[in-house]
Amino acid sequence: MDLWYTEFQTETIGLTCKTRKTLHTEKTDFQEIAIIDTYQFGKMLVLDGTVQTTEVDEHIYHEMISHVPLLTHKNPKKVLVIGGGDGGAIREVIKHKSVEKAVLVEIDKRVVELSKKYFPNISSDLENDLVEVRIEDGIKYIDDNKNVFDVILIDSTDPVGPAEGLFSKDFYKSVFEALKEDGIMVAQTESPYFHKKLIKNVNDDLKGIFPIVNLYTCPIPTYPSGFWSFTLASKVYDPTNKSVEDLDFNNTKYFNEDIYRSCFLLPKFMKDVLK
Amino acid sequence: MDLWYTEFQTETIGLTCKTRKTLHTEKTDFQEIAIIDTYQFGKMLVLDGTVQTTEVDEHIYHEMISHVPLLTHKNPKKVLVIGGGDGGAIREVIKHKSVEKAVLVEIDKRVVELSKKYFPNISSDLENDLVEVRIEDGIKYIDDNKNVFDVILIDSTDPVGPAEGLFSKDFYKSVFEALKEDGIMVAQTESPYFHKKLIKNVNDDLKGIFPIVNLYTCPIPTYPSGFWSFTLASKVYDPTNKSVEDLDFNNTKYFNEDIYRSCFLLPKFMKDVLK
Repeated sequence: MDLWYTEFQTETIGLTCKTRKTLHTEKTDFQEIAIIDTYQFGKMLVLDGTVQTTEVDEHIYHEMISHVPLLTHKNPKKVLVIGGGDGGAIREVIKHKSVEKAVLVEIDKRVVELSKKYFPNISSDLENDLVEVRIEDGIKYIDDNKNVFDVILIDSTDPVGPAEGLFSKDFYKSVFEALKEDGIMVAQTESPYFHKKLIKNVNDDLKGIFPIVNLYTCPIPTYPSGFWSFTLASKVYDPTNKSVEDLDFNNTKYFNEDIYRSCFLLPKFMKDVLK
Repeated sequence: MDLWYTEFQTETIGLTCKTRKTLHTEKTDFQEIAIIDTYQFGKMLVLDGTVQTTEVDEHIYHEMISHVPLLTHKNPKKVLVIGGGDGGAIREVIKHKSVEKAVLVEIDKRVVELSKKYFPNISSDLENDLVEVRIEDGIKYIDDNKNVFDVILIDSTDPVGPAEGLFSKDFYKSVFEALKEDGIMVAQTESPYFHKKLIKNVNDDLKGIFPIVNLYTCPIPTYPSGFWSFTLASKVYDPTNKSVEDLDFNNTKYFNEDIYRSCFLLPKFMKDVLK
């Protein structure tokens, strides 16, 4: 018997994957969690029916959300990841030798616990001495911490359900205040092909708060349209005008110097969206 | 009743699209043709169960396969498109004012006829005075034409069925001979995530024939993995060392100067594949 798992990425398209086994399903206080073992992408973490991460392609997203802002910052010492309970962003963050402390604030403890059980290669550094894992609401945590972080990564799910507040202008204002005077934030901001309005809104909101705002992209096979965006907002450092230092590039699979340079170069339709 | 069309892009994943209607199906001497009207991507041309082009995203592929080589060439006058019976590549080719003649060689006349009927915005320039449409085998046509073309685009289907010969080293040798002394060819070379071995083989074969070979990429939502590659082989001009001239960029939707510069900058895993 063939078993297939289909994520309906929009109302009218889906990505369907042949599965070996559904390893776990659970309804938590925040969302529905499923862990599915697929032939093409290995084990998948699925939240509320949306693929968050897979063993085969997780490195692309995690490298891109972390190395771009951390390299743009001169000397990131204290880094906050909001969401990202799988630990993939944290794993990449602490590859930077300057980092002295990385805090993960995840609202759903079951994401952390299940990632440790089923995704050891992604969650591998959640027990690292440099890492503090806090199970609480990222919005509240940000409000309680002012002028603390060099870099903040908003590694959220889609802007519905528990992550909705992580896409609001009020939240971005709090992120600005939680950052030090030369701080940088990055948020995952969905597909350039399918979510143009959201990307434009986030861009406009952040431009009202931060002096430097830049969109960058990468291809991710398991995300809707296969093409994904991140929005970086910076108080001082311009990511498009920076030499590359300090990263051991042998320690990545997707990211390199060429990608750092080219990821901010956008196709015509995206420049039109941001106008 | 909901109708969905699923392309199984590999043995273990598929892209499934909600459809309004199947407009046409036909088995020709060469392949099975289907034209399906979908909600997400508009009308789709499907050959042997593989999505070739859709109204919504066709411009990305067609702009990338044509503008990159035509801009790299100093002054392309005579251009050949092998395959590409939908006319999308031809439409982009003749946007270049230097082009005096564009020849399309498509093996299956039904692709041309059905594209004219169902995809008027893609096939719009097949009747242009600069364009010659020939229904014949591209491999034979290439063998009969030596030292004729400035640029040759190999706009093929996947390397199975009628297009298999278009991925062979002997064919590339004939393409070299069909090009003038400063000629350039480009071939579509499948997904960097799913078809690493094919990309490596084409790259190696072309490096044995042409002095300059470069891989470039773009994101295409309806192609497997959402990420696609093209391989450019050139006798004289280096595409990575060229200023941008001569193109009316207002006449594209995806391609622009930034994309021309950045499309050759590859992620680490692709550089590793090509080593």
